[in-house]
Amino acid sequence: MRNLDEDNITRAVIAMHADAKDARVRTLMTSLVQHIHSFAREVELTEEEWFKGIRFLTEVGHITTDVRQEFILLSDTLGLSMLVTALNNKKPQGCTEATVFGPFHVEGSPLVPLGGDVANGAEGEPCFVRGSVIGTDGQPVPNAELQVWQADAAGKYDVQYARDGGDHEHRARGTLIADAQGNFHFKTIRAEAYPIPHDGPVGRMLEALGRHPWRPAHLHFLITAPGFDRLITHVFRNGDRYLDSDAVFGVRSSLIADWIEHPPGATPDGGTSDVPFYTLDFRFVLNPAAANVAAPQTAGVASPRSASA
Amino acid sequence: MRNLDEDNITRAVIAMHADAKDARVRTLMTSLVQHIHSFAREVELTEEEWFKGIRFLTEVGHITTDVRQEFILLSDTLGLSMLVTALNNKKPQGCTEATVFGPFHVEGSPLVPLGGDVANGAEGEPCFVRGSVIGTDGQPVPNAELQVWQADAAGKYDVQYARDGGDHEHRARGTLIADAQGNFHFKTIRAEAYPIPHDGPVGRMLEALGRHPWRPAHLHFLITAPGFDRLITHVFRNGDRYLDSDAVFGVRSSLIADWIEHPPGATPDGGTSDVPFYTLDFRFVLNPAAANVAAPQTAGVASPRSASA
Ligand SMILES: [Fe+2]
Ligand SMILES: [Fe+2]
Repeated sequence: MRNLDEDNITRAVIAMHADAKDARVRTLMTSLVQHIHSFAREVELTEEEWFKGIRFLTEVGHITTDVRQEFILLSDTLGLSMLVTALNNKKPQGCTEATVFGPFHVEGSPLVPLGGDVANGAEGEPCFVRGSVIGTDGQPVPNAELQVWQADAAGKYDVQYARDGGDHEHRARGTLIADAQGNFHFKTIRAEAYPIPHDGPVGRMLEALGRHPWRPAHLHFLITAPGFDRLITHVFRNGDRYLDSDAVFGVRSSLIADWIEHPPGATPDGGTSDVPFYTLDFRFVLNPAAANVAAPQTAGVASPRSASA
Repeated sequence: MRNLDEDNITRAVIAMHADAKDARVRTLMTSLVQHIHSFAREVELTEEEWFKGIRFLTEVGHITTDVRQEFILLSDTLGLSMLVTALNNKKPQGCTEATVFGPFHVEGSPLVPLGGDVANGAEGEPCFVRGSVIGTDGQPVPNAELQVWQADAAGKYDVQYARDGGDHEHRARGTLIADAQGNFHFKTIRAEAYPIPHDGPVGRMLEALGRHPWRPAHLHFLITAPGFDRLITHVFRNGDRYLDSDAVFGVRSSLIADWIEHPPGATPDGGTSDVPFYTLDFRFVLNPAAANVAAPQTAGVASPRSASA
């Protein structure tokens, strides 16, 4: 423990964790220390670069509030979030794939009746969404809970307006309960591409990396039903220019769907629209929960994560 | 860029950096992404663990202020700071070794005349420090600037009192100019072991790792002189119980010295003490600056780092 040099300090740090009570904590911290040290050695990190890193993390911490989670943005833009999603959502063929959760989920969004309006005043082109929830056996999953959330025509989530002092609570965001046959439908606005918040340190990082901050247009879903794994995913809009350069690496071909454009006229809800409108159909296939394993693994995710948005 | 999985996502993220203008930024971020991803894969990081990490970093960010730098504490306690110090301070045999800077340096501490009192009211046992600054050729380095700072008898730095609302500005902290023969001497208090601030997330991390937060007693020095590399180091107090378990891994045998105890009586400054007092002697050997290389490399360190304390 004296005279540690660049070669033996890593072992010394890890040896200090030998008494950690929790074996998993020991495993995690051993690997983390090894990789952080390997990074510093590999690039021969200078003291100035180290301090730039300290300042960067400090800025990420200071811009983070109840309604802005810059550490999640950082994880998202470095591909860590999608990697963790991939590691934890290995499912049988045929199941709807998962993708990143993102920083804009809000716990307790208002219940919207089937056929109701999720937009709640959010600006955008009218869109009618319908779909179903089934299991891998093709049978309907009755009464699944679907939380949906999306950006408006300006590419912003309601919580981003709240942050700027506007009163846009629970716009383009809601909770629906599918019917006994697993079907659901609701009215909303067309999902639009948007840049992730890039006026902070993560935005400056993207700029330094020569990267753009855009995400292809998508509609978020969080679907839960007893006896099935929770599904956190998006539906992406076909034709979007950012499908091959998503700033957070979340696009999956199986999640891309057509928002079909219709001329002004009769709408699926029995009304009429004097502007063009869109329809979207999507079928979600849930993975049956493993008896003892899957439930606790996913149970921890929603509540802590959602506390961040 | 679609359908990325745990195996190919790392390459995809790195490919997005191909247009970064600065080659060094590209190198750093490529290595960082590889190591962060390798960590997640190696431990099969769960979504819950990922979110605990996000929350931990958020807490580290929120407790960090102008007078508390929890990210530096985190780097220090994971051995990263000492590793970076080792990577950047390779010096010829005979030079005084460097060690960690720590989070308690303050830019612009008051000038104290040779023989003056650095303690400035800080509580502790009287201590008289004297020493010299020489080059690797054994010749005196004239008029070097020495910044010194240390904890008091309670194991606290002045800035830690300021944080709690107390008015302890510039206690046990000062700047001295050695004489033309490279000699210096000053009065202060005996350095004491102290726990790093452990009432925040880093303290909880240490607890989970079964580690204590203590540092062996030490006196910080930052020494600059034209024509020599800046030296950031400590002198450690011989016999301290934490010399072999420094919470930040900074101890070097060559930096350990004896604080010699004296009975009440005549003191080196020509006065008398009615309590026991201590003396410390230390000789610093500076590394001549490489003509073009060393100066800019070290120049960036002091100002940004010191902004943090
Ligand atoms: Fe989104
Ligand atoms: Fe210290």
